[in-house]
Amino acid sequence: MSQSRRTRVQRLPERGVYERTEIERILDAGLTCHVGYVVDDQPFVTPTAYWRTGDRLYWHGSSASRMLRQLAAGVAACVTVTHVDGLVLARSAYHHSMNYRSVMALGTAYPLLDREERLAALHAFMERVAPGRWQEVRPPSEGELTATTVMWMSLDEASAKVRTGPPLDDEADYALTCWAGVLPMTTCVHPPSADPRLLAATAEPAYLRTLRLG
Amino acid sequence: MSQSRRTRVQRLPERGVYERTEIERILDAGLTCHVGYVVDDQPFVTPTAYWRTGDRLYWHGSSASRMLRQLAAGVAACVTVTHVDGLVLARSAYHHSMNYRSVMALGTAYPLLDREERLAALHAFMERVAPGRWQEVRPPSEGELTATTVMWMSLDEASAKVRTGPPLDDEADYALTCWAGVLPMTTCVHPPSADPRLLAATAEPAYLRTLRLG
Repeated sequence: MSQSRRTRVQRLPERGVYERTEIERILDAGLTCHVGYVVDDQPFVTPTAYWRTGDRLYWHGSSASRMLRQLAAGVAACVTVTHVDGLVLARSAYHHSMNYRSVMALGTAYPLLDREERLAALHAFMERVAPGRWQEVRPPSEGELTATTVMWMSLDEASAKVRTGPPLDDEADYALTCWAGVLPMTTCVHPPSADPRLLAATAEPAYLRTLRLG
Repeated sequence: MSQSRRTRVQRLPERGVYERTEIERILDAGLTCHVGYVVDDQPFVTPTAYWRTGDRLYWHGSSASRMLRQLAAGVAACVTVTHVDGLVLARSAYHHSMNYRSVMALGTAYPLLDREERLAALHAFMERVAPGRWQEVRPPSEGELTATTVMWMSLDEASAKVRTGPPLDDEADYALTCWAGVLPMTTCVHPPSADPRLLAATAEPAYLRTLRLG
Protein backbone atom coordinates (compact mmCIF):
# COMPACT_ATOMS: atom_id res chain seq x y z
CA MET A 1 0.00 0.00 0.00
CA SER A 2 1.83 3.06 -1.20
CA GLN A 3 1.83 6.44 0.45
CA SER A 4 1.05 8.85 -2.35
CA ARG A 5 1.25 12.60 -2.22
CA ARG A 6 -2.54 12.69 -2.07
CA THR A 7 -2.96 10.22 0.77
CA ARG A 8 -0.08 11.37 2.95
CA VAL A 9 -1.65 12.69 6.14
CA GLN A 10 -0.84 16.38 6.11
CA ARG A 11 -2.31 17.63 9.37
CA LEU A 12 -0.74 16.12 12.48
CA PRO A 13 1.38 13.69 10.44
CA GLU A 14 2.20 11.74 13.62
CA ARG A 15 -1.37 10.46 13.41
CA GLY A 16 -0.84 8.99 9.95
CA VAL A 17 -0.76 5.22 9.56
CA TYR A 18 0.33 3.53 6.37
CA GLU A 19 0.83 -0.11 7.42
CA ARG A 20 -1.45 -2.32 5.42
CA THR A 21 -2.39 -4.55 8.34
CA GLU A 22 -3.57 -1.59 10.39
CA ILE A 23 -5.55 -0.15 7.46
CA GLU A 24 -7.21 -3.53 6.92
CA ARG A 25 -7.98 -3.87 10.63
CA ILE A 26 -9.81 -0.53 10.60
CA LEU A 27 -11.72 -1.41 7.44
CA ASP A 28 -12.68 -4.89 8.66
CA ALA A 29 -14.12 -3.44 11.89
CA GLY A 30 -16.68 -1.38 9.97
CA LEU A 31 -19.93 -1.89 8.14
CA THR A 32 -20.77 1.53 6.66
CA CYS A 33 -18.57 3.98 4.77
CA HIS A 34 -19.06 7.36 3.15
CA VAL A 35 -18.45 7.45 -0.60
CA GLY A 36 -17.55 10.78 -2.17
CA TYR A 37 -18.01 11.49 -5.87
CA VAL A 38 -18.51 14.54 -8.05
CA VAL A 39 -21.41 15.47 -10.33
CA ASP A 40 -21.19 18.77 -12.22
CA ASP A 41 -18.51 20.10 -9.84
CA GLN A 42 -20.73 19.37 -6.82
CA PRO A 43 -19.38 16.79 -4.36
CA PHE A 44 -21.81 14.23 -2.97
CA VAL A 45 -21.16 12.08 0.09
CA THR A 46 -23.34 8.99 0.36
CA PRO A 47 -23.38 6.57 3.28
CA THR A 48 -23.47 2.93 2.28
CA ALA A 49 -22.51 -0.54 3.48
CA TYR A 50 -19.14 -1.85 2.31
CA TRP A 51 -16.88 -4.85 2.64
CA ARG A 52 -13.27 -5.69 1.82
CA THR A 53 -11.82 -8.65 -0.03
CA GLY A 54 -8.05 -8.64 -0.49
CA ASP A 55 -6.89 -5.27 -1.76
CA ARG A 56 -10.32 -4.11 -2.90
CA LEU A 57 -13.20 -2.31 -1.24
CA TYR A 58 -16.71 -3.17 -2.40
CA TRP A 59 -20.10 -1.58 -2.00
CA HIS A 60 -23.39 -2.10 -3.73
CA GLY A 61 -26.76 -0.64 -4.43
CA SER A 62 -29.47 -0.28 -6.97
CA SER A 63 -28.38 0.04 -10.56
CA ALA A 64 -30.75 3.00 -10.69
CA SER A 65 -29.12 5.04 -7.93
CA ARG A 66 -27.59 8.42 -8.71
CA MET A 67 -24.34 7.51 -7.01
CA LEU A 68 -23.92 4.22 -8.81
CA ARG A 69 -25.00 5.61 -12.18
CA GLN A 70 -22.31 8.22 -11.87
CA LEU A 71 -19.64 5.76 -10.80
CA ALA A 72 -20.45 3.10 -13.37
CA ALA A 73 -18.27 4.62 -16.06
CA GLY A 74 -15.30 4.45 -13.70
CA VAL A 75 -14.93 7.79 -11.97
CA ALA A 76 -12.89 9.34 -9.21
CA ALA A 77 -14.13 8.39 -5.77
CA CYS A 78 -13.10 8.69 -2.16
CA VAL A 79 -14.22 6.11 0.36
CA THR A 80 -13.86 7.02 4.03
CA VAL A 81 -14.44 4.71 6.97
CA THR A 82 -14.52 6.22 10.45
CA HIS A 83 -14.76 4.72 13.92
CA VAL A 84 -15.37 7.34 16.59
CA ASP A 85 -13.77 6.12 19.83
CA GLY A 86 -14.26 9.05 22.17
CA LEU A 87 -14.55 12.72 22.93
CA VAL A 88 -11.30 14.11 24.32
CA LEU A 89 -11.85 16.83 26.91
CA ALA A 90 -8.73 18.88 27.54
CA ARG A 91 -8.08 21.60 30.11
CA SER A 92 -7.88 24.18 27.35
CA ALA A 93 -10.63 24.74 24.80
CA TYR A 94 -8.06 24.53 22.01
CA HIS A 95 -6.82 21.02 22.79
CA HIS A 96 -10.22 19.35 22.81
CA SER A 97 -10.23 16.54 20.27
CA MET A 98 -11.72 13.22 19.26
CA ASN A 99 -10.29 9.73 19.48
CA TYR A 100 -10.94 7.93 16.22
CA ARG A 101 -9.63 5.51 13.62
CA SER A 102 -10.32 6.41 10.01
CA VAL A 103 -9.25 5.21 6.59
CA MET A 104 -9.46 7.31 3.44
CA ALA A 105 -9.10 5.51 0.12
CA LEU A 106 -8.79 7.43 -3.15
CA GLY A 107 -9.15 5.93 -6.55
CA THR A 108 -11.38 5.08 -9.45
CA ALA A 109 -14.47 3.04 -8.74
CA TYR A 110 -15.74 0.49 -11.26
CA PRO A 111 -18.80 -1.71 -11.45
CA LEU A 112 -18.43 -5.49 -11.47
CA LEU A 113 -19.79 -6.33 -14.90
CA ASP A 114 -19.49 -10.08 -14.71
CA ARG A 115 -22.52 -11.89 -13.25
CA GLU A 116 -20.45 -14.52 -11.43
CA GLU A 117 -18.13 -11.93 -9.94
CA ARG A 118 -21.14 -9.95 -8.73
CA LEU A 119 -22.66 -13.02 -7.12
CA ALA A 120 -19.37 -13.93 -5.46
CA ALA A 121 -18.99 -10.40 -4.10
CA LEU A 122 -22.49 -10.39 -2.61
CA HIS A 123 -21.76 -13.78 -1.06
CA ALA A 124 -18.59 -12.37 0.49
CA PHE A 125 -20.56 -9.44 1.93
CA MET A 126 -23.05 -11.79 3.57
CA GLU A 127 -20.20 -13.89 4.97
CA ARG A 128 -18.70 -10.77 6.50
CA VAL A 129 -21.84 -9.83 8.45
CA ALA A 130 -23.56 -13.21 8.93
CA PRO A 131 -21.31 -16.20 8.20
CA GLY A 132 -23.31 -19.12 6.81
CA ARG A 133 -26.45 -17.10 6.12
CA TRP A 134 -26.02 -17.21 2.34
CA GLN A 135 -27.09 -20.88 2.48
CA GLU A 136 -30.23 -19.97 4.43
CA VAL A 137 -31.71 -17.11 2.41
CA ARG A 138 -33.42 -17.14 -0.95
CA PRO A 139 -30.62 -16.36 -3.43
CA PRO A 140 -30.94 -13.41 -5.82
CA SER A 141 -33.07 -14.00 -8.88
CA GLU A 142 -31.62 -13.10 -12.25
CA GLY A 143 -33.70 -9.94 -12.24
CA GLU A 144 -32.50 -8.97 -8.78
CA LEU A 145 -28.91 -9.63 -9.77
CA THR A 146 -29.31 -7.41 -12.80
CA ALA A 147 -30.82 -4.69 -10.64
CA THR A 148 -27.84 -4.79 -8.24
CA THR A 149 -24.72 -2.85 -9.04
CA VAL A 150 -21.58 -3.88 -7.18
CA MET A 151 -18.81 -1.30 -7.19
CA TRP A 152 -15.16 -1.93 -6.36
CA MET A 153 -12.17 0.26 -5.80
CA SER A 154 -8.54 -0.60 -5.28
CA LEU A 155 -6.97 0.08 -1.90
CA ASP A 156 -3.66 1.04 -3.52
CA GLU A 157 -4.01 4.63 -2.48
CA ALA A 158 -5.24 4.48 1.11
CA SER A 159 -4.10 5.85 4.41
CA ALA A 160 -5.34 5.76 7.96
CA LYS A 161 -5.44 8.38 10.67
CA VAL A 162 -5.66 7.43 14.31
CA ARG A 163 -5.84 9.30 17.60
CA THR A 164 -5.87 7.48 20.92
CA GLY A 165 -5.27 8.30 24.55
CA PRO A 166 -5.89 11.14 26.98
CA PRO A 167 -5.84 14.85 26.13
CA LEU A 168 -2.50 16.51 25.48
CA ASP A 169 -2.56 19.89 27.16
CA ASP A 170 0.04 22.61 27.27
CA GLU A 171 2.32 21.84 30.20
CA ALA A 172 1.23 24.90 32.20
CA ASP A 173 -2.43 23.89 31.91
CA TYR A 174 -1.95 20.66 33.86
CA ALA A 175 -2.10 22.82 37.00
CA LEU A 176 -5.72 23.75 36.25
CA THR A 177 -8.48 22.13 38.29
CA CYS A 178 -10.71 21.59 35.25
CA TRP A 179 -11.79 17.98 34.69
CA ALA A 180 -9.98 16.36 31.78
CA GLY A 181 -10.13 12.96 30.18
CA VAL A 182 -11.99 10.96 27.58
CA LEU A 183 -15.65 10.16 27.12
CA PRO A 184 -15.37 6.78 25.36
CA MET A 185 -17.79 5.83 22.59
CA THR A 186 -18.36 2.57 20.77
CA THR A 187 -20.81 1.12 18.29
CA CYS A 188 -23.00 -1.27 20.27
CA VAL A 189 -24.68 -4.20 18.52
CA HIS A 190 -27.74 -5.19 20.53
CA PRO A 191 -29.65 -8.49 20.75
CA PRO A 192 -31.59 -9.28 17.58
CA SER A 193 -35.16 -8.15 17.13
CA ALA A 194 -37.14 -10.82 15.27
CA ASP A 195 -39.47 -9.88 12.42
CA PRO A 196 -43.08 -9.93 13.71
CA ARG A 197 -43.91 -12.19 10.77
CA LEU A 198 -41.23 -14.77 11.60
CA LEU A 199 -42.60 -18.31 11.44
CA ALA A 200 -43.01 -19.95 14.84
CA ALA A 201 -40.08 -22.13 15.94
CA THR A 202 -37.59 -20.44 13.60
CA ALA A 203 -34.20 -20.98 15.21
CA GLU A 204 -32.02 -17.95 15.98
CA PRO A 205 -28.73 -18.37 14.11
CA ALA A 206 -25.54 -18.12 16.18
CA TYR A 207 -24.08 -15.37 13.96
CA LEU A 208 -26.65 -12.91 15.32
CA ARG A 209 -24.68 -12.79 18.58
CA THR A 210 -21.17 -12.55 17.20
CA LEU A 211 -21.07 -9.42 15.04
CA ARG A 212 -18.63 -6.86 16.44
CA LEU A 213 -18.24 -3.39 14.99
CA GLY A 214 -15.82 -0.54 15.53
CA MET B 1 -35.82 24.12 3.93
CA SER B 2 -36.40 23.70 0.26
CA GLN B 3 -36.33 20.48 -1.68
CA SER B 4 -34.10 21.20 -4.65
CA ARG B 5 -33.57 19.00 -7.65
CA ARG B 6 -30.19 18.05 -6.23
CA THR B 7 -31.37 17.09 -2.77
CA ARG B 8 -34.56 15.29 -3.72
CA VAL B 9 -34.08 11.68 -2.67
CA GLN B 10 -34.04 9.78 -5.94
CA ARG B 11 -33.68 6.18 -4.86
CA LEU B 12 -36.57 4.86 -2.78
CA PRO B 13 -38.22 8.28 -2.58
CA GLU B 14 -40.56 7.01 0.16
CA ARG B 15 -37.51 7.19 2.42
CA GLY B 16 -36.99 10.89 1.76
CA VAL B 17 -37.69 13.36 4.56
CA TYR B 18 -37.83 17.09 3.99
CA GLU B 19 -39.41 18.42 7.20
CA ARG B 20 -37.06 20.81 8.86
CA THR B 21 -37.76 19.55 12.39
CA GLU B 22 -36.86 15.99 11.43
CA ILE B 23 -33.68 17.12 9.64
CA GLU B 24 -32.65 19.12 12.71
CA ARG B 25 -33.42 16.20 15.02
CA ILE B 26 -31.09 13.96 13.03
CA LEU B 27 -28.35 16.60 12.95
CA ASP B 28 -28.62 17.39 16.65
CA ALA B 29 -28.25 13.71 17.57
CA GLY B 30 -24.80 13.55 16.00
CA LEU B 31 -21.26 14.64 16.74
CA THR B 32 -19.27 13.72 13.64
CA CYS B 33 -20.04 14.27 9.99
CA HIS B 34 -18.30 13.54 6.70
CA VAL B 35 -17.43 16.61 4.62
CA GLY B 36 -16.97 16.15 0.88
CA TYR B 37 -15.01 18.61 -1.25
CA VAL B 38 -13.12 18.51 -4.52
CA VAL B 39 -9.46 19.20 -5.23
CA ASP B 40 -8.27 18.89 -8.85
CA ASP B 41 -11.33 16.78 -9.80
CA GLN B 42 -10.60 14.34 -6.96
CA PRO B 43 -13.27 14.12 -4.26
CA PHE B 44 -12.12 13.96 -0.65
CA VAL B 45 -14.30 12.87 2.26
CA THR B 46 -13.05 13.97 5.68
CA PRO B 47 -14.61 13.00 9.01
CA THR B 48 -14.90 15.84 11.47
CA ALA B 49 -16.91 17.06 14.44
CA TYR B 50 -19.80 19.42 13.67
CA TRP B 51 -22.56 21.31 15.36
CA ARG B 52 -25.69 23.18 14.30
CA THR B 53 -26.91 26.65 15.24
CA GLY B 54 -30.14 27.77 13.60
CA ASP B 55 -30.01 27.10 9.88
CA ARG B 56 -26.27 26.64 9.71
CA LEU B 57 -23.92 23.71 10.13
CA TYR B 58 -20.49 24.42 11.59
CA TRP B 59 -17.24 22.50 11.78
CA HIS B 60 -13.72 23.53 12.60
CA GLY B 61 -10.11 22.58 12.37
CA SER B 62 -6.63 23.84 11.90
CA SER B 63 -6.20 26.76 9.54
CA ALA B 64 -3.39 24.69 8.02
CA SER B 65 -5.49 21.66 7.08
CA ARG B 66 -5.89 20.65 3.45
CA MET B 67 -9.65 20.47 3.76
CA LEU B 68 -10.04 23.88 5.36
CA ARG B 69 -7.49 25.55 3.09
CA GLN B 70 -9.54 24.37 0.13
CA LEU B 71 -12.84 25.47 1.60
CA ALA B 72 -11.69 28.87 2.82
CA ALA B 73 -12.35 30.59 -0.49
CA GLY B 74 -15.94 29.38 -0.34
CA VAL B 75 -16.27 26.20 -2.33
CA ALA B 76 -18.84 23.52 -3.03
CA ALA B 77 -19.19 21.08 -0.18
CA CYS B 78 -21.43 18.23 0.89
CA VAL B 79 -21.89 17.45 4.56
CA THR B 80 -23.41 14.09 5.42
CA VAL B 81 -24.46 12.94 8.89
CA THR B 82 -25.37 9.29 9.34
CA HIS B 83 -26.76 7.33 12.26
CA VAL B 84 -26.68 3.59 11.67
CA ASP B 85 -29.58 2.02 13.57
CA GLY B 86 -29.44 -1.60 12.53
CA LEU B 87 -28.71 -4.35 10.07
CA VAL B 88 -31.90 -5.59 8.39
CA LEU B 89 -31.81 -9.30 7.67
CA ALA B 90 -34.44 -10.35 5.14
CA ARG B 91 -35.45 -13.81 3.96
CA SER B 92 -34.07 -13.03 0.50
CA ALA B 93 -30.51 -11.88 -0.12
CA TYR B 94 -31.82 -9.02 -2.22
CA HIS B 95 -33.95 -7.39 0.47
CA HIS B 96 -31.23 -7.14 3.09
CA SER B 97 -30.84 -3.54 4.13
CA MET B 98 -29.80 -1.13 6.87
CA ASN B 99 -31.88 0.96 9.23
CA TYR B 100 -30.43 4.46 9.36
CA ARG B 101 -31.12 8.16 9.57
CA SER B 102 -28.98 10.40 7.42
CA VAL B 103 -28.90 14.02 6.35
CA MET B 104 -27.11 15.28 3.26
CA ALA B 105 -26.55 19.04 2.99
CA LEU B 106 -25.22 20.60 -0.20
CA GLY B 107 -23.91 24.10 -0.48
CA THR B 108 -20.97 26.42 -0.34
CA ALA B 109 -18.87 26.40 2.81
CA TYR B 110 -17.29 29.60 4.11
CA PRO B 111 -14.89 30.38 6.93
CA LEU B 112 -15.99 32.61 9.79
CA LEU B 113 -13.64 35.54 9.34
CA ASP B 114 -14.73 37.59 12.34
CA ARG B 115 -12.91 36.84 15.61
CA GLU B 116 -16.01 37.31 17.78
CA GLU B 117 -18.13 35.11 15.55
CA ARG B 118 -15.46 32.42 15.67
CA LEU B 119 -15.31 32.58 19.45
CA ALA B 120 -19.10 32.44 19.73
CA ALA B 121 -19.25 29.43 17.42
CA LEU B 122 -16.63 27.51 19.41
CA HIS B 123 -18.56 28.35 22.58
CA ALA B 124 -21.73 26.95 20.99
CA PHE B 125 -19.90 23.74 20.08
CA MET B 126 -18.73 23.27 23.67
CA GLU B 127 -22.27 23.93 24.92
CA ARG B 128 -23.56 21.23 22.61
CA VAL B 129 -21.25 18.51 23.96
CA ALA B 130 -20.58 19.69 27.53
CA PRO B 131 -22.95 22.43 28.72
CA GLY B 132 -21.20 24.79 31.13
CA ARG B 133 -17.71 23.56 30.39
CA TRP B 134 -16.69 26.73 28.52
CA GLN B 135 -16.51 28.49 31.91
CA GLU B 136 -14.22 25.76 33.30
CA VAL B 137 -11.55 25.45 30.62
CA ARG B 138 -8.74 27.79 29.69
CA PRO B 139 -10.19 29.90 26.86
CA PRO B 140 -8.41 30.07 23.50
CA SER B 141 -5.44 32.42 23.33
CA GLU B 142 -5.30 34.90 20.46
CA GLY B 143 -2.79 32.65 18.73
CA GLU B 144 -4.98 29.60 19.13
CA LEU B 145 -7.99 31.49 17.85
CA THR B 146 -6.04 32.57 14.79
CA ALA B 147 -4.94 28.98 14.20
CA THR B 148 -8.54 27.74 14.30
CA THR B 149 -10.68 27.90 11.20
CA VAL B 150 -14.43 27.66 11.73
CA MET B 151 -16.42 26.75 8.63
CA TRP B 152 -20.14 27.16 8.15
CA MET B 153 -22.62 26.10 5.54
CA SER B 154 -26.28 26.92 5.11
CA LEU B 155 -28.83 24.16 5.57
CA ASP B 156 -31.02 25.59 2.81
CA GLU B 157 -30.35 22.63 0.57
CA ALA B 158 -30.62 19.62 2.84
CA SER B 159 -32.61 16.43 2.87
CA ALA B 160 -32.85 13.40 5.09
CA LYS B 161 -33.23 9.75 4.33
CA VAL B 162 -34.60 7.33 6.89
CA ARG B 163 -35.29 3.61 7.00
CA THR B 164 -36.86 1.98 10.03
CA GLY B 165 -38.61 -1.25 10.87
CA PRO B 166 -38.38 -4.92 10.00
CA PRO B 167 -37.36 -6.35 6.62
CA LEU B 168 -39.79 -6.09 3.72
CA ASP B 169 -39.68 -9.36 1.85
CA ASP B 170 -41.52 -10.47 -1.25
CA GLU B 171 -44.83 -11.91 -0.10
CA ALA B 172 -43.97 -15.46 -1.18
CA ASP B 173 -40.76 -15.40 0.84
CA TYR B 174 -42.57 -15.02 4.17
CA ALA B 175 -43.19 -18.78 3.99
CA LEU B 176 -39.43 -19.45 4.24
CA THR B 177 -38.05 -20.72 7.55
CA CYS B 178 -34.99 -18.44 7.37
CA TRP B 179 -34.55 -16.15 10.41
CA ALA B 180 -35.42 -12.54 9.62
CA GLY B 181 -35.38 -9.37 11.64
CA VAL B 182 -33.12 -6.53 12.70
CA LEU B 183 -29.80 -6.45 14.51
CA PRO B 184 -30.09 -3.08 16.26
CA MET B 185 -27.05 -0.81 16.61
CA THR B 186 -26.52 2.37 18.57
CA THR B 187 -23.66 4.66 19.48
CA CYS B 188 -22.92 4.00 23.15
CA VAL B 189 -21.33 6.71 25.28
CA HIS B 190 -19.51 5.06 28.17
CA PRO B 191 -18.55 6.36 31.62
CA PRO B 192 -15.76 8.96 31.48
CA SER B 193 -12.12 7.93 31.71
CA ALA B 194 -10.18 10.53 33.70
CA ASP B 195 -6.83 11.81 32.47
CA PRO B 196 -4.05 10.07 34.49
CA ARG B 197 -2.65 13.54 35.22
CA LEU B 198 -5.91 14.86 36.65
CA LEU B 199 -5.33 16.75 39.93
CA ALA B 200 -6.58 14.89 42.98
CA ALA B 201 -10.06 15.84 44.15
CA THR B 202 -11.11 17.24 40.77
CA ALA B 203 -14.89 16.94 40.68
CA GLU B 204 -16.53 15.05 37.83
CA PRO B 205 -18.90 17.45 36.04
CA ALA B 206 -22.51 16.31 35.60
CA TYR B 207 -22.42 16.82 31.81
CA LEU B 208 -20.11 13.82 31.47
CA ARG B 209 -23.08 11.55 32.16
CA THR B 210 -25.71 13.22 30.00
CA LEU B 211 -24.36 13.19 26.43
CA ARG B 212 -26.57 11.10 24.16
CA LEU B 213 -25.67 10.37 20.55
CA GLY B 214 -27.49 8.79 17.64
